[in-house]
Amino acid sequence: MAAQTVASTTESTVDLGPAAALSCRECGHRVPLGPVFACEECFGPLEIAYDFSAYDTEELRKRIEAGPANIWRYAPLLPVPADVATKPNINPGWTQLVKADNLARELGVDAGKLFIKDDSGNPTHSFKDRVVAQALEAARAFGFTTLSCSSTGNLAGAVGAAAARAGFRSCVFIPHDLEQGKVVMAAIYGGELVGIEGNYDDVNRFCSELIGDPAGEGWGFVNVNLRPYYAEGSKTLAYEICEQLGWQLPDQLVVPIASGSQLTKIDKGLQELIKLGLVEDKPYKIFGAQAEGCSPVSVAFKAGHDVVRPQKPNTIAKSLAIGNPADGPYVLDIARRTGGAVEDVTDEQVVDAIKVLARTEGIFAETAGGVTVGVTRKLIENGVLDPTKTTVVLNTGDGLKTLDAVAGTGLTATIRPNLDSFREAGLA
Amino acid sequence: MAAQTVASTTESTVDLGPAAALSCRECGHRVPLGPVFACEECFGPLEIAYDFSAYDTEELRKRIEAGPANIWRYAPLLPVPADVATKPNINPGWTQLVKADNLARELGVDAGKLFIKDDSGNPTHSFKDRVVAQALEAARAFGFTTLSCSSTGNLAGAVGAAAARAGFRSCVFIPHDLEQGKVVMAAIYGGELVGIEGNYDDVNRFCSELIGDPAGEGWGFVNVNLRPYYAEGSKTLAYEICEQLGWQLPDQLVVPIASGSQLTKIDKGLQELIKLGLVEDKPYKIFGAQAEGCSPVSVAFKAGHDVVRPQKPNTIAKSLAIGNPADGPYVLDIARRTGGAVEDVTDEQVVDAIKVLARTEGIFAETAGGVTVGVTRKLIENGVLDPTKTTVVLNTGDGLKTLDAVAGTGLTATIRPNLDSFREAGLA
Repeated sequence: MAAQTVASTTESTVDLGPAAALSCRECGHRVPLGPVFACEECFGPLEIAYDFSAYDTEELRKRIEAGPANIWRYAPLLPVPADVATKPNINPGWTQLVKADNLARELGVDAGKLFIKDDSGNPTHSFKDRVVAQALEAARAFGFTTLSCSSTGNLAGAVGAAAARAGFRSCVFIPHDLEQGKVVMAAIYGGELVGIEGNYDDVNRFCSELIGDPAGEGWGFVNVNLRPYYAEGSKTLAYEICEQLGWQLPDQLVVPIASGSQLTKIDKGLQELIKLGLVEDKPYKIFGAQAEGCSPVSVAFKAGHDVVRPQKPNTIAKSLAIGNPADGPYVLDIARRTGGAVEDVTDEQVVDAIKVLARTEGIFAETAGGVTVGVTRKLIENGVLDPTKTTVVLNTGDGLKTLDAVAGTGLTATIRPNLDSFREAGLA
Repeated sequence: MAAQTVASTTESTVDLGPAAALSCRECGHRVPLGPVFACEECFGPLEIAYDFSAYDTEELRKRIEAGPANIWRYAPLLPVPADVATKPNINPGWTQLVKADNLARELGVDAGKLFIKDDSGNPTHSFKDRVVAQALEAARAFGFTTLSCSSTGNLAGAVGAAAARAGFRSCVFIPHDLEQGKVVMAAIYGGELVGIEGNYDDVNRFCSELIGDPAGEGWGFVNVNLRPYYAEGSKTLAYEICEQLGWQLPDQLVVPIASGSQLTKIDKGLQELIKLGLVEDKPYKIFGAQAEGCSPVSVAFKAGHDVVRPQKPNTIAKSLAIGNPADGPYVLDIARRTGGAVEDVTDEQVVDAIKVLARTEGIFAETAGGVTVGVTRKLIENGVLDPTKTTVVLNTGDGLKTLDAVAGTGLTATIRPNLDSFREAGLA
């Protein structure tokens, strides 16, 4: 039995389960739970500090296993009240961990050793449902009535859907000239969908302005003032992977990098499971994956730098196209500490990897999934990733949302409706 | 303890678990399990006859509850071998049963009484994954090496994905002039995707020709020569709904009608659960839902007919657009026997219902989901469906696949990136 104890130096009045306080990742300064995201002392990012001291390992394991087939089975490890599963939310998670033996053969990985964690099975078909579901519970705890975000795609849909289910107003800001398909996917949930005349940076700047203004009062911006809660949703990927492997750590994980938050929270989740005794402690390596057209973390990793130099994104992997990733330095730290790496692939390799994954495993991934599979292949070819070890590759989104990337895919033959034509085409 | 016993008059040599034989729905003639779909005596449809005689109710319930979070938890009730979960398949099912209190308020249903069974959470985001997964196991048992079908959409993707995962060749036939998006969704899995110069009827006719030809040897057409196995997949919707309701029958179900097969198999599944003692026997009503532009069963129901007069489909609900539904008469029978009804709604009502469901519950449904929600509303308004009783409405597909139907949905406002513009737009 092991448990993580956090000495409580502050008091929080909201009930967010085991979440005890917010703690600065840089200086350790603690503040009560609230809708804040930056340290008042050093401007470092705040994250959740937990009190897990009351848990008995085997009781906790049983409680989790008896829980619902969604992220709320891990409620004891998340900043949510104990009765979270009874509240209206979109209940993402417990997505398939697919044993990918066909892909393993293709990539030269040992049989039974390669897995795809397929988050396209979430309610709005991306991992964003996990983080938005957390932000929603925080918004509820803080008495917010509007859920908001800036977005260029997946996040807008996840926020719109979660707000609708929970009876919140939603108001989502996007660049005004997004493709019509993406607009429909976000607008269908009936919240306010506001086009901003400008690019994504303009949208973000406007949102920061709105948070500081009385007009933004009562608004929870999932990835700004609710970010510490929101980000914790990515821990559930680590929990699920380990439980689905039979309460074991994988040896290697390949995780996409946008802001880098997901990768850092997966590491946090794995560390928690070790400290709680739910998995046996052993080394694991975390590999970060980027597209070449937006690879600031990969470039920094290869150059041996501790800081990340911003880039102007130019890649089809739009859900990863954050040129100035907030958690970049932490990603570098984790990749180096665990013996992993950060690598990138070209857009052409992304498209090829999407097709390989679909052809071998029947999984149609978003471009971000093409990035992780493509990077996995490259890391194996370069001898960086060990093909004899248990490896989990994340697919964080759905190919239906990035059809443009594979628009060239088409019919293998066109025939007349008779057997002669069928034979002529060489299909028999 | 109760169990359904089927006297075995034939012997089958393949291991498909409790499936004992094929039995003609019309004349009861029995033949061994094989890739056949029509009775040699009367040309009636063949369906699976089971031997459930060995089951103890409470042992069976425990076995199911301890099973995986997909349809294979019900392996003891399906035509699949006992070790099915260990074989490569896409493992659909155990999708969310969403308590839809917001929609209930909107439709005037009592709180806690309305549920959406949301099958958009399946691997390729439609209920077709359930039936294709069954067909795949039958194809494996019969030694087929190619999985095939005719399709205009959802089915093509489901077959392509399942074949890829299981290492089968796939060859799917579609009309050559389908929209590019649908072609991509089917082609991405890397199987043969053959465009037929002609309409969907021509495609179907060609497939029937191919089955009778040596060129089609070793081919499993999921919805033709594997149809008896394929169709059983819809039973899992009934099983899941009852288990998710705490092993209780719902009072009312609203089910879409394409061929009518799904509705008849849901009824079959409910009857099995009653006979096995897994749920308490009580009356339930099944309601069928069609789009007005393809409403042959609804028209027949209202006219009091026993047979269904074919229609030429003209509706946006393309996944339901079967003008000559094979199981139409059986649907009429079930609706009448259970005290249900069959109703239809206009395309405008379908679009409105899609928006209502998205706005109230955060579920973005395919047009077929708009049909069931729209019909539910109409049946309540007409006093046919009881708003005080537990009602389950099926959403069988995903809105991302029918974006065209709601293409008009868009931005609620466009503003400049500053607070003044935000206030002018009345958003504060």
